[in-house]
Amino acid sequence: MKDVTLGIDIGGTNTVFGIVDAKGNIIFSDSIPTLGMEPAEDLFERLFEAFNDKFKQYSDEYKLVGIGMGAPDANYYTGAIQNPPNLNWGYVDVASAMKKHYNLPFALTNDANAAAIGEMEFGSARGMKNFVEVTLGTGLGSGIVVNGKMLYGHSGTAGEMGHITIVPDGRKCGCGKKGCLETYVSATGIKRTAFELLATSREESILRDISYNNLTAKQIYEAAKKRDKIAMSAFKYTGRLLGEALADVVALLSPEAIVIFGGLAQAGDVLFEPTRKSMENNLLQFHKGKIKLIKSGLPESDAAILGASALIWQEIRNKSN
Amino acid sequence: MKDVTLGIDIGGTNTVFGIVDAKGNIIFSDSIPTLGMEPAEDLFERLFEAFNDKFKQYSDEYKLVGIGMGAPDANYYTGAIQNPPNLNWGYVDVASAMKKHYNLPFALTNDANAAAIGEMEFGSARGMKNFVEVTLGTGLGSGIVVNGKMLYGHSGTAGEMGHITIVPDGRKCGCGKKGCLETYVSATGIKRTAFELLATSREESILRDISYNNLTAKQIYEAAKKRDKIAMSAFKYTGRLLGEALADVVALLSPEAIVIFGGLAQAGDVLFEPTRKSMENNLLQFHKGKIKLIKSGLPESDAAILGASALIWQEIRNKSN
Repeated sequence: MKDVTLGIDIGGTNTVFGIVDAKGNIIFSDSIPTLGMEPAEDLFERLFEAFNDKFKQYSDEYKLVGIGMGAPDANYYTGAIQNPPNLNWGYVDVASAMKKHYNLPFALTNDANAAAIGEMEFGSARGMKNFVEVTLGTGLGSGIVVNGKMLYGHSGTAGEMGHITIVPDGRKCGCGKKGCLETYVSATGIKRTAFELLATSREESILRDISYNNLTAKQIYEAAKKRDKIAMSAFKYTGRLLGEALADVVALLSPEAIVIFGGLAQAGDVLFEPTRKSMENNLLQFHKGKIKLIKSGLPESDAAILGASALIWQEIRNKSN
Repeated sequence: MKDVTLGIDIGGTNTVFGIVDAKGNIIFSDSIPTLGMEPAEDLFERLFEAFNDKFKQYSDEYKLVGIGMGAPDANYYTGAIQNPPNLNWGYVDVASAMKKHYNLPFALTNDANAAAIGEMEFGSARGMKNFVEVTLGTGLGSGIVVNGKMLYGHSGTAGEMGHITIVPDGRKCGCGKKGCLETYVSATGIKRTAFELLATSREESILRDISYNNLTAKQIYEAAKKRDKIAMSAFKYTGRLLGEALADVVALLSPEAIVIFGGLAQAGDVLFEPTRKSMENNLLQFHKGKIKLIKSGLPESDAAILGASALIWQEIRNKSN
């Protein structure tokens, strides 16, 4: 029998899960709707029903040794999810809820941290002891790894790079502050930038025919590929601010690499080049040319499962050491 | 025989050293001129001559078990000092140089890191696993402690909080960048702020009679105590920017506390109040009211020796575990 772990990622819309071996091979994966307006326990019931049903056919070959979970507003220390904005759950003690289904080692962390751990186990950060994972989605998340370990901090909430101030008195953020990095550097951020540019410049643009609510970061990327000037400027500005923020993070943490994950990272050079240039310009002399800026090595569709699974693989390994 | 360590701090002008027991009691201390224009080996010769001479009378009672050193531009990983700006040394392999004098456990780090370690062993951060030490001197240094360990990062140069950008395109910094935190928050920074205020405001001030070269941060503090408006505004502005920067640091690291060390910290509430207020205003909701902002618990005159000594006490303890 081969040891495997169950990786679960709770998203606002869907919850994905999969069985992963110690090398990061996904044996099977599936997803169910999260239905965040229903109680969390309902989700866990449906989840394990779906999982058990599927795992039956594998149970001769594989032995489940642990469960890892990535979720919004999850706290590694408490094993709880606290007031996730898109789920009507309040406070959920997930660690205890899990025990009712499987009495196995369990660990929980937020999505960005799970991505960082997945990167360290199975992705671009293999073998690295000090790096920062930046996840670019609707918002900007980050996971900081120090001495080969996830940095959780005193309260378990470290890594909120999306909420460092990049533009004093800048754009309003969902967190209540102004000028947070994620209001500029994220799928939503680049959309806001594109709209600002449509307003301030007189440049023709494909984007002038799309409403704010209809515009996606992907459309901005497609436009940039067609050398649409507004779209290209939006990526340049996004990269410039991301590079500035990364230089500050490097000054504080001296990582070996910055790994960029998520939808916007797929834009490749159109984002990476201005980011790298701006980061280099703002690095301290002794860091210049030495900090790797790399793309995630995790396949985007499986990253959430791999991250959650990597989390519990690490726990199991650390305990056996 | 009681175990003691030798703590050494190399400063631009003087090198201080002292014998410290495991509880942070200084048995004796002394200082010699650094003479940074002479080779480093000359300093080490003079240092150990002075030390041996003094230690003779204690050698029946105390056993030297290790040597710790704080120095500018020191790298913990390499045990070397690299191109310190005020010392004409270039690259000095201090760890090897030490072996010629005493074949004992030796560790080296920069001044701010040594202060953080001293704080953790003997000062305000005793028992804390996650905190940030901010040292306010001519510049701004910082030492970050994560999970009870100093954060050195990949290259050994983590903790350069003085060089995060706080004002985009702001004041010129010695590092070549613009708007670095230490150009605003440090003894030099507050002096620059006072001069800016003298220029922009029409307020009467004691400071109008002092030249830039003659003005000290202490004079600004004395003036603020006498309710000089320019001086008070200078402290308010310094605190505001420090608080903004600390909120970013808290978002990234989620520390239990920020410990402020150094000359400016002696100003007390006149600096701490605006700093605390600004930090609180800029913290994420779940951090508000939870991050301690405290003054160093190390006596300033002995802090350098205590920090250097604490560094090697930690090393010895970690090795025996």
